[in-house]
Amino acid sequence: MGMAEFSADLRWATGGYSVPDPIFYCEVEGKKILLASSLEIERARKEAKVDEVISLETYIEKSKKENLPISALFLKERGVTNVTITASMRYSLAKNLATHFELTVREDPFFSERAVKTEWEVSEIEKAQRAVEAAVGEAMEFLREGKVRDGLVFHRRFGDTPLSSFHIRKIIDDALFERGHLGVESIVACGIEAADPHAKGMGLIRPNQPIVIDIFPRSLETLYFADQTRTVFKGEPSDAVSSMYEAVLKAQELAVGMIKAREDGAKIEEAVREFFDSKGYPTDFSSTPVRGFIHSLGHGVGLEIHEEPNLSRRSNILRAGNIVTVEPGLYYQKPEGKIPARGIRIEDMVLVTEGGCRNLTNFPKKLDEMIV
Amino acid sequence: MGMAEFSADLRWATGGYSVPDPIFYCEVEGKKILLASSLEIERARKEAKVDEVISLETYIEKSKKENLPISALFLKERGVTNVTITASMRYSLAKNLATHFELTVREDPFFSERAVKTEWEVSEIEKAQRAVEAAVGEAMEFLREGKVRDGLVFHRRFGDTPLSSFHIRKIIDDALFERGHLGVESIVACGIEAADPHAKGMGLIRPNQPIVIDIFPRSLETLYFADQTRTVFKGEPSDAVSSMYEAVLKAQELAVGMIKAREDGAKIEEAVREFFDSKGYPTDFSSTPVRGFIHSLGHGVGLEIHEEPNLSRRSNILRAGNIVTVEPGLYYQKPEGKIPARGIRIEDMVLVTEGGCRNLTNFPKKLDEMIV
Repeated sequence: MGMAEFSADLRWATGGYSVPDPIFYCEVEGKKILLASSLEIERARKEAKVDEVISLETYIEKSKKENLPISALFLKERGVTNVTITASMRYSLAKNLATHFELTVREDPFFSERAVKTEWEVSEIEKAQRAVEAAVGEAMEFLREGKVRDGLVFHRRFGDTPLSSFHIRKIIDDALFERGHLGVESIVACGIEAADPHAKGMGLIRPNQPIVIDIFPRSLETLYFADQTRTVFKGEPSDAVSSMYEAVLKAQELAVGMIKAREDGAKIEEAVREFFDSKGYPTDFSSTPVRGFIHSLGHGVGLEIHEEPNLSRRSNILRAGNIVTVEPGLYYQKPEGKIPARGIRIEDMVLVTEGGCRNLTNFPKKLDEMIV
Repeated sequence: MGMAEFSADLRWATGGYSVPDPIFYCEVEGKKILLASSLEIERARKEAKVDEVISLETYIEKSKKENLPISALFLKERGVTNVTITASMRYSLAKNLATHFELTVREDPFFSERAVKTEWEVSEIEKAQRAVEAAVGEAMEFLREGKVRDGLVFHRRFGDTPLSSFHIRKIIDDALFERGHLGVESIVACGIEAADPHAKGMGLIRPNQPIVIDIFPRSLETLYFADQTRTVFKGEPSDAVSSMYEAVLKAQELAVGMIKAREDGAKIEEAVREFFDSKGYPTDFSSTPVRGFIHSLGHGVGLEIHEEPNLSRRSNILRAGNIVTVEPGLYYQKPEGKIPARGIRIEDMVLVTEGGCRNLTNFPKKLDEMIV
């Protein structure tokens, strides 16, 4: 037996309910209704925050006889004629529904209200964030204990094996797990690897070079995410890298300072890119590989790691209660002039308020605090 | 940043590739083609086992200008006229494709070949199974160390707090994680809770009562699953429970003995239900709550925890190379005659062969070995 993962929309709508078997969820005239298998009925009645729970089995025979999906059968029975479905509904089911109802298709997220967090949601996301901070703190302490030899880093725990991304990732993932959170695909990327923002990191840890640590774990209990990036150094970075770090930090603080309700995410991203340009760190999406500030500035965080609202080139007006990441970065896979072939990213997660934002990230980010 | 989870079909088709951003995968005249964002291109070329990797960005402008999804644009460019899509494709995209191509919809799994495992897949699933066995072994050892007092179980590690499902689940999940596997929603259900086969278990551990331990972790590296259930006891079960255990064990061995290529899963499930009837353990799907052997006999295991082929009331012919669970159980939420209000389940995972099956589960299952 096993539990399948639910859509974030469904989990949100039912107050965190999830089951291993197919269910059908709908809202009819403001009432939340769940059709679940007889095996699930009792727990669904206890756990799902809905108004009605109905046995799927009641409809199986009729569904076969009338050659109609159970969902269609049920909606017809309730006298429904107009149905709004999620754009990500299975094509085979949606196509069938389209023959029986006046169908409206709503793009994801189905419940756009998910982007405005409740107090409880904010506290769950903050819990995840505390786990991130503890885990990255442990990783930095571990790196601090490491000894540099022949351009590599060693730790007594691993004897003569030089430290790699894998060692650091394991320390972080273990620390997260101990705190009830799951880090999957955590990024620990050093040196040239850090110049690819999606590289998970597979190489050796080198002294004096940026180590991008981007951690986005999920609560094993409530499934809410948090997200943080820090770029740390085992030993002093070069002047060129230090300058690049300072530019990213300034850009990040600039962006955090602009976040507030009714501000346009695109405007903030543009300001960051312009700031980088003015500091001599140009962005070029047409080069191969792309270089500069080559990803978007941030994204919403909740039951999905990437959800509404995005801070990107596309206009998107922030609302009080949004939780978004603010994560400018610079990436150059080849050196050019004063720019080293490195990557640096700094990311906080903030709660948008009427007059600004509350930073949910307590972790240090000044360069001298990032050097261990 | 974060990684989204891929469909099992897509992961299987690309040899385990996964990315955080949307991609488009298709096969044209036998060639595997991936369209990925420019950020992903280089890694996709390295990691995805496909014939061609193309930049999505190449098509963005044209897509806007011609008001066509990139996928449609690309397929037209390649001269494609007939397209087979997965039934679970997003409705909004599939509907659009339907206006441009002769569309065939294929039910999941898109790649039915996934049900026949390669040698490598068998070895990955066996690795996950070894992790399960180690974890359940640790949990049983921990229970063995426990002391019974006032109808509860205590362990020195937790002092005066009586053991609950949560303690045992944590030991199992930690042991799995240490071995690179993730147990989510692991079932540890004692006493009356065990009479609901999907109950995760939230209660106290009671001596002399069945504790159903159903563990189905996923490799954090390759994402393959394994699945095992044992019913264990802290102290001697009653005669009624022992008899029920023996009936489930006999049924399980009967079913394992019937597994072979070209056998029908429905026939095996029927044999099990008949065996239970003959032993005085009837099944009734129409009672509330349902009682007896109330779930299906088994399911395929691979990149999904529930995949083809199912062993259920629906006819399904087994093939050599299938990996399936064999997991009969009995569940009675109210006592009746000699039957106690308890639940018991025993589950192995087997590889179907020409003449029978190879049991991938090495864990003991005799009653006296289940008593700690």
